[in-house]
Amino acid sequence: MMTDHKPDPALLARAETLVEALPYMQRYAGSTFVVKYGGHAMGDADAAEDFAEDVVLLKAVGINPIVVHGGGPQIGAALKAQGIESRFIDGLRVTDAATMKVAEMVLSGAINKEIVSWIQAEGGRAVGISGKDGRLVTATKIQGPHDLGLVGEPDDIDTRLLDTISRAGMIPVVAPIGGGADGQTYPINAANFAGALPLATGAERLFLLTDVAGVLDKEKRLLTDLTPPQIAGLKADGTIYGGMIPKLQTCIDAVEGGVDAAVILDGRVPHAMLVEIFTKAGAGTLVRAA
Amino acid sequence: MMTDHKPDPALLARAETLVEALPYMQRYAGSTFVVKYGGHAMGDADAAEDFAEDVVLLKAVGINPIVVHGGGPQIGAALKAQGIESRFIDGLRVTDAATMKVAEMVLSGAINKEIVSWIQAEGGRAVGISGKDGRLVTATKIQGPHDLGLVGEPDDIDTRLLDTISRAGMIPVVAPIGGGADGQTYPINAANFAGALPLATGAERLFLLTDVAGVLDKEKRLLTDLTPPQIAGLKADGTIYGGMIPKLQTCIDAVEGGVDAAVILDGRVPHAMLVEIFTKAGAGTLVRAA
Amino acid sequence: MMTDHKPDPALLARAETLVEALPYMQRYAGSTFVVKYGGHAMGDADAAEDFAEDVVLLKAVGINPIVVHGGGPQIGAALKAQGIESRFIDGLRVTDAATMKVAEMVLSGAINKEIVSWIQAEGGRAVGISGKDGRLVTATKIQGPHDLGLVGEPDDIDTRLLDTISRAGMIPVVAPIGGGADGQTYPINAANFAGALPLATGAERLFLLTDVAGVLDKEKRLLTDLTPPQIAGLKADGTIYGGMIPKLQTCIDAVEGGVDAAVILDGRVPHAMLVEIFTKAGAGTLVRAA
Amino acid sequence: MMTDHKPDPALLARAETLVEALPYMQRYAGSTFVVKYGGHAMGDADAAEDFAEDVVLLKAVGINPIVVHGGGPQIGAALKAQGIESRFIDGLRVTDAATMKVAEMVLSGAINKEIVSWIQAEGGRAVGISGKDGRLVTATKIQGPHDLGLVGEPDDIDTRLLDTISRAGMIPVVAPIGGGADGQTYPINAANFAGALPLATGAERLFLLTDVAGVLDKEKRLLTDLTPPQIAGLKADGTIYGGMIPKLQTCIDAVEGGVDAAVILDGRVPHAMLVEIFTKAGAGTLVRAA
Amino acid sequence: MMTDHKPDPALLARAETLVEALPYMQRYAGSTFVVKYGGHAMGDADAAEDFAEDVVLLKAVGINPIVVHGGGPQIGAALKAQGIESRFIDGLRVTDAATMKVAEMVLSGAINKEIVSWIQAEGGRAVGISGKDGRLVTATKIQGPHDLGLVGEPDDIDTRLLDTISRAGMIPVVAPIGGGADGQTYPINAANFAGALPLATGAERLFLLTDVAGVLDKEKRLLTDLTPPQIAGLKADGTIYGGMIPKLQTCIDAVEGGVDAAVILDGRVPHAMLVEIFTKAGAGTLVRAA
Amino acid sequence: MMTDHKPDPALLARAETLVEALPYMQRYAGSTFVVKYGGHAMGDADAAEDFAEDVVLLKAVGINPIVVHGGGPQIGAALKAQGIESRFIDGLRVTDAATMKVAEMVLSGAINKEIVSWIQAEGGRAVGISGKDGRLVTATKIQGPHDLGLVGEPDDIDTRLLDTISRAGMIPVVAPIGGGADGQTYPINAANFAGALPLATGAERLFLLTDVAGVLDKEKRLLTDLTPPQIAGLKADGTIYGGMIPKLQTCIDAVEGGVDAAVILDGRVPHAMLVEIFTKAGAGTLVRAA
Repeated sequence: MMTDHKPDPALLARAETLVEALPYMQRYAGSTFVVKYGGHAMGDADAAEDFAEDVVLLKAVGINPIVVHGGGPQIGAALKAQGIESRFIDGLRVTDAATMKVAEMVLSGAINKEIVSWIQAEGGRAVGISGKDGRLVTATKIQGPHDLGLVGEPDDIDTRLLDTISRAGMIPVVAPIGGGADGQTYPINAANFAGALPLATGAERLFLLTDVAGVLDKEKRLLTDLTPPQIAGLKADGTIYGGMIPKLQTCIDAVEGGVDAAVILDGRVPHAMLVEIFTKAGAGTLVRAA
Repeated sequence: MMTDHKPDPALLARAETLVEALPYMQRYAGSTFVVKYGGHAMGDADAAEDFAEDVVLLKAVGINPIVVHGGGPQIGAALKAQGIESRFIDGLRVTDAATMKVAEMVLSGAINKEIVSWIQAEGGRAVGISGKDGRLVTATKIQGPHDLGLVGEPDDIDTRLLDTISRAGMIPVVAPIGGGADGQTYPINAANFAGALPLATGAERLFLLTDVAGVLDKEKRLLTDLTPPQIAGLKADGTIYGGMIPKLQTCIDAVEGGVDAAVILDGRVPHAMLVEIFTKAGAGTLVRAA
Repeated sequence: MMTDHKPDPALLARAETLVEALPYMQRYAGSTFVVKYGGHAMGDADAAEDFAEDVVLLKAVGINPIVVHGGGPQIGAALKAQGIESRFIDGLRVTDAATMKVAEMVLSGAINKEIVSWIQAEGGRAVGISGKDGRLVTATKIQGPHDLGLVGEPDDIDTRLLDTISRAGMIPVVAPIGGGADGQTYPINAANFAGALPLATGAERLFLLTDVAGVLDKEKRLLTDLTPPQIAGLKADGTIYGGMIPKLQTCIDAVEGGVDAAVILDGRVPHAMLVEIFTKAGAGTLVRAA
Repeated sequence: MMTDHKPDPALLARAETLVEALPYMQRYAGSTFVVKYGGHAMGDADAAEDFAEDVVLLKAVGINPIVVHGGGPQIGAALKAQGIESRFIDGLRVTDAATMKVAEMVLSGAINKEIVSWIQAEGGRAVGISGKDGRLVTATKIQGPHDLGLVGEPDDIDTRLLDTISRAGMIPVVAPIGGGADGQTYPINAANFAGALPLATGAERLFLLTDVAGVLDKEKRLLTDLTPPQIAGLKADGTIYGGMIPKLQTCIDAVEGGVDAAVILDGRVPHAMLVEIFTKAGAGTLVRAA
Repeated sequence: MMTDHKPDPALLARAETLVEALPYMQRYAGSTFVVKYGGHAMGDADAAEDFAEDVVLLKAVGINPIVVHGGGPQIGAALKAQGIESRFIDGLRVTDAATMKVAEMVLSGAINKEIVSWIQAEGGRAVGISGKDGRLVTATKIQGPHDLGLVGEPDDIDTRLLDTISRAGMIPVVAPIGGGADGQTYPINAANFAGALPLATGAERLFLLTDVAGVLDKEKRLLTDLTPPQIAGLKADGTIYGGMIPKLQTCIDAVEGGVDAAVILDGRVPHAMLVEIFTKAGAGTLVRAA
Repeated sequence: MMTDHKPDPALLARAETLVEALPYMQRYAGSTFVVKYGGHAMGDADAAEDFAEDVVLLKAVGINPIVVHGGGPQIGAALKAQGIESRFIDGLRVTDAATMKVAEMVLSGAINKEIVSWIQAEGGRAVGISGKDGRLVTATKIQGPHDLGLVGEPDDIDTRLLDTISRAGMIPVVAPIGGGADGQTYPINAANFAGALPLATGAERLFLLTDVAGVLDKEKRLLTDLTPPQIAGLKADGTIYGGMIPKLQTCIDAVEGGVDAAVILDGRVPHAMLVEIFTKAGAGTLVRAA
């Protein structure tokens, strides 16, 4: 392998990569990171494995990840398979009792446990729960101009179960569902759900894994750092629009509530989270207080 | 309400009931009870409420209940709704990948979370998990004369997650699913699953809540106490047959493995568990070592 | 016992009684209750057993009871038996050194240990102490128009011993005696003594078990709920008078100091405490902040 | 006070005394010492103060003392004062229910709390209990040729309460009374009672404070060290006789049960315990395994 | 040893000395004492043994001593032995890199470990560290009219390592060296170093062991108690001058920062610390807030 | 940085390196590794930084490293600088009192603290101690045909201080010196010293960082895996000789005592430890039980 003490350059490069990650490990040891993992990214087995490796690595270096997942496409497919038709208002699905039951079953029974399996496969110890478990998220019916039925938003967060799981060396994986004080079950938009956790858990970072590269300027170049005022400007001039607006609002809310940074990342890029966390390069768009 | 010190007889009777339960509370304080709740009993809202009250009361008096549920009828209905046909061998459903996915979704995503909701409604703090979570149950494919597909049996139990939840003052509700060392997901017969927990958790009692009154003799009278040798005799003379045989085998295994007692109870009887635990009368059929 | 699933109505009623107590168990789990048990009620073996059962039941469902007892009649009898004559001023016994020694001996050596025996007989683990033990109550000589000798009042409370005993799963039973900073031993009026504990221990309830039904209105009907202003009114119009006045003052002090509620209960009524705590009906007179 | 660095010889001598005690402090830090304090020595206020100082000093240097006291003379006086006559068999008092009640009252209510006061006066935190408290000593009626009535012997020791008190930085003071499984209260000979504690508590030393100098040889010289075989010899030749025989038997039982040493000390000698523990000289008669 | 119960007067005197120390043990139990031990006093083996005994005795009675040592003379000798010449400015040695290395080696490698050996010889468990270890003291280069080179002053104190050692029943012995945020190593004046610890550790006392008797008045009589205003007066009238001024400033800083008292003691006087701590007489000059 | 979701290949490679290390992090989390760092490798600042990074990285991923260092060359230089001449027997230096003092000063005061500084510079929290501290290593004079003076070998290991430091999140750095029961200080060969720690601490790995590539065969190719029998063979045929023999003996002792593996590594190779621990490739010669 070596004569005298000339090391194999490839091995040396690998060791140096570990060493370069060291300052980030030290900085984040003991921190909590909330990671929102979108339903769109779930079809790809390689991406799933990459994502699970990232989460397990965070745990191994002393960070406490909390995974929140979505599942919109899968719920749509299941409704279709069962012949349940949906009514839409302004493009939003109205959720009646039957739809809610399918949504819960898909989120808590299929996607949630699939992510658990991925994480276990990488040597982690995941625990799949929903916001109903341990009274984690008390939800109220979302209010608005139109009645969307059984759609909730987080009203009260009790982090005891999350803390218990994390302290036991395990990784919570959370389906975005809350229990109402009225006993009703409410599906919640996954980004809303994830956005409510950092403040309650004292998390230092919020990651939104999506299927876009991040916020792009008008020339389609990635904007790597933004502050709330800059976002307001980009919204005003039309650079930001559509589905990116609520994502950025979730980031702004988190940052203004005290979280260090919220990051919109491309979940399709292999190990985007590791690159973002453990290298100077970063990835995606990071939102930080002005 | 009273003149001088003559108490209201109705209130006095209620106080005395509490006092009569005291010796049982003292005897079981700190114990773990595994409760298997069958899918057959789940349609009835009143029975559900009664069951949840029983579980929450156990927790309130210092017992740690672990609920394991089944879901056969609901899985059958879901398969039918999705138009998935099943092949049967000797009356047992062959479980292919699609069937397994439906089974997991129904068990972990529908029934599990419904029981969680019931328990929360009674003021408890339930946590719905499956045997995959926290690597609770490592399963292997069940062996037998015929290949039933993805049906597992418990191979290794790691109780860390159950202990963590119970010590945090919460109630674990467990769907009977295990993760294989091969990464595969295996549904497991709920009674088998529940029967594997007492030895691993050091539980003192195993309750099998079913939809029969217990073991009946040939005159259809309830047999309230049985030992393994007596069961062997009743099996030999045909008093016990059919679905009761595996239930009793689960009891025998638990008792021979060190559990104090295993009880077959009628889950349709309101508060059957409370009667069994907190009164001299008892309920159902209790199996104890000879 | 049953055919099919029709339960025995008597057993069902008992189970339902337990279930009705559940919300109260949940509400008071982890709370501390101070219970003053008067010397007048101590002659009756049945009442003693009832009282002990009540205390042990509280402990079994997660409440921490602290029992404070009196002993006036027993001290009088012991003084008489030993031929020690007492001088009275305005009906109050002057306590010289010999009288104090008899009082301490009767309170700490007879009544205290008798209550301990009762509680042990019901399966509890009682620890009989006085306010001198562990420096629980530092007393000063009571001041007033006449010198009553060695009669004290609580000056400083150090709850460390009570906390230690309660956390060890045991039940403190306390004789109303304090040690002075001067090394002197001072008997203290039991209601005064009990009234000083809730604020120091953070107790949520104070119970005064007496030999009257509670506060009665002019038609001798029980007044079940009172506030300090209402009490002032009843005192002004003569409805409340005599020995009830200091009892109510103890309740007012406790409530104004932050305790949720203070209750005057008839200790002769079997299980009055359980009825008060675990049913909607309640018993006796409850004093709550206006 | 000093010029240059010549110290005051008196102060220096005091410092050196502390230093000479250091090896003994190190050797016994964390140990438990059971100290039996006889009723005979209790009349003398100076001796009481000395004894209390010794006990508090042990606690201050990290030893856990457990004080067990007697009270024979005081019980006799109280019986006489109340006109209760005693029947004697072979010089032993027959204990009927009335006698037992007086004995408990004197032991638990008078002597026990007086010792507590002494210890508090020296800055210690004492907790006066009897063997009934916390189910410390379960007693059975003593068996013998004659029925002595309600006299017990220790049958089972549960040290949880002692451990709880000691770990809380407090000093248990124990009246020699046990509770029977039958609910009966049994006074126990104080030396018997004390002798049962070392094995149960893992104590390293047992001290019997008496009103004799120790074991004397035929020339009335103190024998400072004895082994069980030597004691057998001295008993055979009549050097040891009378009340010294049960005292030595208690020592032999303790030593043969695993205690390092049992010491018979003269409680009338000021600070005899300190001299025994913290100097090479020792005091009294020390019994050690052969 | 004794006839009847007349004690040996010499032994009794020793016991009484222990008892007289008791109030001081009680008062200081659980406290932290910072002890600065000067390099001048280190040549004398007897004094070293006395000092070590004092420190170990403090630990044995529940006080947590933290020893900080100097080493000026020994550093001078080592520099001379290695032929390293020093430049002096206003009598202060300029510390270049070579000098610093010798200083660290002598302080951390010779004196520090010698004190550790002394303390172990008396049965203590010492841990020799410097301010660099565990980031205990972050230092900055001392500022002043002249550049003295690598001489530091404490800038930030992180007491975690001291707490860890003390709680483990061990005695920290600290060389006065700090690590700069710049990675540089800085020797620090031992009195400055010791003076910075009490506030950070919550110590109740600071002892400066020197080679003078304390503060003397103009008639060379020891001043046993001083307040900051009195010190100001004595400085103004020339009673205090020279090397005593920085020592007293260290005391004033400690006292004004919240420490109970700071004491200048003659380290050459045998057991001066014990006399100061455990007798009414005291020793040296004690500085207390006005 | 990216268009669409094509990642920067360099960043991806770095992320993948972290992921490849994950199984090793999981396998060794919570383990203790003893690392012997030789004095020969200490002159090179780059190597020092690499070594410190490796140690801090181990700690960051949950491994507890214990660093033991040598210092032969530095001691020789210091003796020479101080003009202390050494006598040699068979090439071994005879250690008189003066030599021992220089050795301790260099080891504990110079090298030890330099390694501490390196580790702090990489963000770790190091604590530099010697085997004397906390009575970690009790040494006895080494026995042999010639009297080598004050040279010791480990006789008894008390790991309490090491455990305390590691549990506090800090990294112990240990100079190879022991304290004799006779109060004498004994330098110990660093490999001997390090070799004694794994069994006492329950370490899973022992690393000997040297200035050779590992064990070479006769063709100078590195032998990457050896068992004790293989080593015996290589010694017999002369492949292994000289200074490698005691190094391998240390490995054999450790492995036969229960350690998983002992590794001889080239400390001059950058990050050799990381390569060995976190890649499949390995580095140096690993000794494992046959």
